[in-house]
Amino acid sequence: MSDITMIEAAARRLKGHARRTPLLSSPFLDDLAGRRVLVKAECLQHTGSFKFRGAWNALSALEPAGVIAFSSGNHAQGVALAARLKGIAAVIVMPADAPAIKIDNTRALGAEVVLYDRATEDRDAIGERLAAERGLTLVKPFDMAEVIAGQGTAGLEIAEQAAEEGVSAADVLVCCGGGGLTSGVALALEARAPGLRARPVEPEGFDDVTRSLATGQVQRNPRLSGSICDAIVTPQPGQLTWPIMARLCGPGLVVSEEQALKAMALAHDRLKIVLEPGGAVALAAALFAPDLPDTVIALATGGNVDRAMMARALSL
Amino acid sequence: MSDITMIEAAARRLKGHARRTPLLSSPFLDDLAGRRVLVKAECLQHTGSFKFRGAWNALSALEPAGVIAFSSGNHAQGVALAARLKGIAAVIVMPADAPAIKIDNTRALGAEVVLYDRATEDRDAIGERLAAERGLTLVKPFDMAEVIAGQGTAGLEIAEQAAEEGVSAADVLVCCGGGGLTSGVALALEARAPGLRARPVEPEGFDDVTRSLATGQVQRNPRLSGSICDAIVTPQPGQLTWPIMARLCGPGLVVSEEQALKAMALAHDRLKIVLEPGGAVALAAALFAPDLPDTVIALATGGNVDRAMMARALSL
Repeated sequence: MSDITMIEAAARRLKGHARRTPLLSSPFLDDLAGRRVLVKAECLQHTGSFKFRGAWNALSALEPAGVIAFSSGNHAQGVALAARLKGIAAVIVMPADAPAIKIDNTRALGAEVVLYDRATEDRDAIGERLAAERGLTLVKPFDMAEVIAGQGTAGLEIAEQAAEEGVSAADVLVCCGGGGLTSGVALALEARAPGLRARPVEPEGFDDVTRSLATGQVQRNPRLSGSICDAIVTPQPGQLTWPIMARLCGPGLVVSEEQALKAMALAHDRLKIVLEPGGAVALAAALFAPDLPDTVIALATGGNVDRAMMARALSL
Repeated sequence: MSDITMIEAAARRLKGHARRTPLLSSPFLDDLAGRRVLVKAECLQHTGSFKFRGAWNALSALEPAGVIAFSSGNHAQGVALAARLKGIAAVIVMPADAPAIKIDNTRALGAEVVLYDRATEDRDAIGERLAAERGLTLVKPFDMAEVIAGQGTAGLEIAEQAAEEGVSAADVLVCCGGGGLTSGVALALEARAPGLRARPVEPEGFDDVTRSLATGQVQRNPRLSGSICDAIVTPQPGQLTWPIMARLCGPGLVVSEEQALKAMALAHDRLKIVLEPGGAVALAAALFAPDLPDTVIALATGGNVDRAMMARALSL
């Protein structure tokens, strides 16, 4: 079971290894939103997303001889760098049609990339075979207690930083895929800043967590491709993350792709940070959603965007 | 005279008001440069540049009834926000042909903008008249002891952050205009991290400080316009900043505009921060200059870039 004790243990493990990311703000964004907007810049974390937190905690807690992960994105880079810093082997299993830049980046971080054909090969079977042959431990992207606890350390920092800013009541908006970060942050806030409430934010058409919270039942996304917010598109809430979100999280929020792109451009102009679309949805909600409280804290969860997508956001 | 005592007094005044900006890094940049590159992200400071430090310190130390400044850029925004937070009047004198966005931004921060015609009007005369009529105190962009001390607080933070990273010897590369930041950082390092040496970095064709250091005599720039690094183009080293730089700074470095644009794009890709060309020259030197030590710390001094210029950097 994930709880505050695990998150505090994770924080001790991450100290001196993960960055304590800053809480940014801009009077221009406050004026635009009509409320106070604080932005937790997790794009400045190692490898450009919060994923390093969970990866580092899992590797530190489990002390595996080597690790394996399925990912072509932020989780892959987080696991690869954590393994490199720990001096252990990392195998990352990716579809052969993943963008070359993502494959290259993961290799450059020292990981071995194993490609598979989505049409003809079974990813899980490949993973199980490799894990058994080489004694590798699977690091899941969200549905794993050590990963949830690692992501929850961002929530501990938010609790401290909000107190420093004199904020005792706010909605904390979290870009949400499988819910590892959202549930970890929610647990941390429950224990350390009970006036702060975690709320997941998702892109239109991929709002499984928002619909799950609204209905009280796990809902699935009808499709899993075709979003520019690919970093946070998952089939449904996780088995471990869902009960935590159901108990602790406020209603979900949904933003359009255009709002995510506008938030990227405004983060560029006013905060001087680089966000990917999936890492900008919480800021988009903070800026554009109606009926929010006077103070909101948005997690800017990732900045791994290619130049063409950023140019598109800046041209709107 | 500017000294470490003034910088430490400034640090006490800035505490809780200016941001302690993070020291960022990326294994990709280290590999590219062939050395360890640490980046002090002053673009994440309030108003998007280090200028807020000097402005806040000057206003805190002098306690003026109101302030006046000549600037169309980062200094204007720093002074405007500091004055707004202090609850005093700020008048910013700008050329009438300054970009509309800069005028709008400065007004949005609560300052009164007074425009003058570069061809027919005398800026200093306008400033003197306004200062006398309204009892305003002039805040100079660099050649003012309180401003140098405020900028020097970035050097105190670098000394602390380098020690946290285990770095006791390095070149500290500073984007250099009139030398307020460079001289303040040099004084802080002399006192708190004597193994770290400040070196100014300038764009080709506007390398007055580099040539001044090489010759031991103050040199002027032959022209003052036509650089994309406009934020750091000044006629010559300041009367207060030059003796400090002459005594403490290592040789200057010069980078091309193309190198500055490439550094902007790499900061986007790998550090997830937004830099303006003049704020990227130190990173450009860290990445592309020959004959640097194994560890360099680059100040990324500002991120106030328009979208078109960023798109240009990303398209290289």
